[in-house]
Amino acid sequence: VGESIGGLGEFGLIGRITRRLTQGANVELGPGDDAAVIRAPDGRVVVTSDLLVQDRHFRLDWSTGYDVGRKAAAQNLADVAAMGARPTAILLGFAGPAETPVRWVEALCDGLRDECDLVGASVVGGDVVRSPGITLAVTALGDLGGSAPLLRSGASPGDVVAVCGRLGFAAAGLDLLLAGLDGPLAEAHRRPQPPYAAGPEALRLGATSMLDVSDGLVQDLRHIAAASGVRIALSSQLLPTAPGVTLEHVLTGGEDHALAGTFPSAQGLPERWRVIGSVVEGEGLTVDGADYGAGGWDHFAR
Amino acid sequence: VGESIGGLGEFGLIGRITRRLTQGANVELGPGDDAAVIRAPDGRVVVTSDLLVQDRHFRLDWSTGYDVGRKAAAQNLADVAAMGARPTAILLGFAGPAETPVRWVEALCDGLRDECDLVGASVVGGDVVRSPGITLAVTALGDLGGSAPLLRSGASPGDVVAVCGRLGFAAAGLDLLLAGLDGPLAEAHRRPQPPYAAGPEALRLGATSMLDVSDGLVQDLRHIAAASGVRIALSSQLLPTAPGVTLEHVLTGGEDHALAGTFPSAQGLPERWRVIGSVVEGEGLTVDGADYGAGGWDHFAR
Repeated sequence: VGESIGGLGEFGLIGRITRRLTQGANVELGPGDDAAVIRAPDGRVVVTSDLLVQDRHFRLDWSTGYDVGRKAAAQNLADVAAMGARPTAILLGFAGPAETPVRWVEALCDGLRDECDLVGASVVGGDVVRSPGITLAVTALGDLGGSAPLLRSGASPGDVVAVCGRLGFAAAGLDLLLAGLDGPLAEAHRRPQPPYAAGPEALRLGATSMLDVSDGLVQDLRHIAAASGVRIALSSQLLPTAPGVTLEHVLTGGEDHALAGTFPSAQGLPERWRVIGSVVEGEGLTVDGADYGAGGWDHFAR
Repeated sequence: VGESIGGLGEFGLIGRITRRLTQGANVELGPGDDAAVIRAPDGRVVVTSDLLVQDRHFRLDWSTGYDVGRKAAAQNLADVAAMGARPTAILLGFAGPAETPVRWVEALCDGLRDECDLVGASVVGGDVVRSPGITLAVTALGDLGGSAPLLRSGASPGDVVAVCGRLGFAAAGLDLLLAGLDGPLAEAHRRPQPPYAAGPEALRLGATSMLDVSDGLVQDLRHIAAASGVRIALSSQLLPTAPGVTLEHVLTGGEDHALAGTFPSAQGLPERWRVIGSVVEGEGLTVDGADYGAGGWDHFAR
């Protein structure tokens, strides 16, 4: 497997990582000091952070380091986009065993960098420490460009519910991998493709609420219902379908990081926004008029 | 030990955490959405992130959850202060076993909150996931208030080197704990006391470079020497002493998070800034004119 990170030492590893990165226009000061300095022209900064734990959020036999980097960046950049903001920077905390191959960490950073490149963000800093298993901590920053952030609490009865991006692909891919199979859906599990530009676009389109689908459509839309004090009514006929993706995958599968939001009207929504239901008086979520069980991902329950 | 976090589930645990927090004036949007929104009046944001791994950065038999929270916040807030900035917010990523007592995590968050209170910062978000051991990821943000950040690269020959805060206390305390003893120095290991206000103060005083002493005075000042293209010449007679703290502790002990910087002159430095040496032509670091070995903490070498 070649050189291990234990042989490089902390500062050697940091040097290997930073030489793979490029610093974009949002970066006043990149890696190498006590902290980074990132432009926040709006006068506010959007910030979110996620942990990914080996064998829980990724498996080394299913995903390459590069895949894990793409996914780790994507899930955080999608959170920024879901506020209607433009991502500017991410930081990586890497904890892992001394015997981790340097090549794996380099590939991880390449993945982070390439996913960031899709939105003009930069990898600007972080930390490396030794740990029995690999744990990644990713923090993403973003800029709202003068707009109010798109919250979960703004949905009103009469709004339509719309989604942009893939639903159920990652969950269907996970089922394939669990069965020892592979294919395009497994690739969707390895590398989500959040529709980043749709976040600021939704803001311009007058969206009243938004989030990214990380734990499952039903579970996540329940958050909008609860925060807004409304009921979300989905119609299964309106939900997207794809070969190998079941209705269950679409309703409860997470990790595709589609954006789901509510809009005052379906009029004027670009084609990539698919209307899947409506907002009505009440609470909770229904599918075809019936309550739908609390499906979705709970990081402690499973 | 009472209730465990596995019984609460992810969203139950997040609820328990957020109810202990208060959101200060820097916070436009706190926990509960896809991301937080923090004021960045300067138009730039300072950001830094660290990982703390159980049995490597803290031990459950030496430190309470509250201690770990204080320390985790302190080391990140000190990084922000070392740029000359005022901390505004931190995020916590918590990875831990399902059997972790809820009370431990609550105490952790109380510690984070109380350390943040010292500087007017708020705990604004994060993530909780299951993991075999406890790993914490802390991200801190700060505001520069219109000033240029204090870098490691600005020292010039003729500058004086000065420190503010404790040196060697945490290392001496660690030695006590390793010997099965306890006392005030052990408390210094559990809860560093970075001189946060000295960061922006140094900026006003015209400091030319600064960092926080996290890995040891010699090792960290070598970073200033390397980044600035100068030699740092320390005088052991000028270094602070304290009962139970050896010169070795002072020179190589990390985790007190003192601030160390360079200034054009010793004139006008407030008493809490102690001059310990000077900046001269050359490279590296000397103590009493002799090279000093590369002591200090490497997160992979030990």
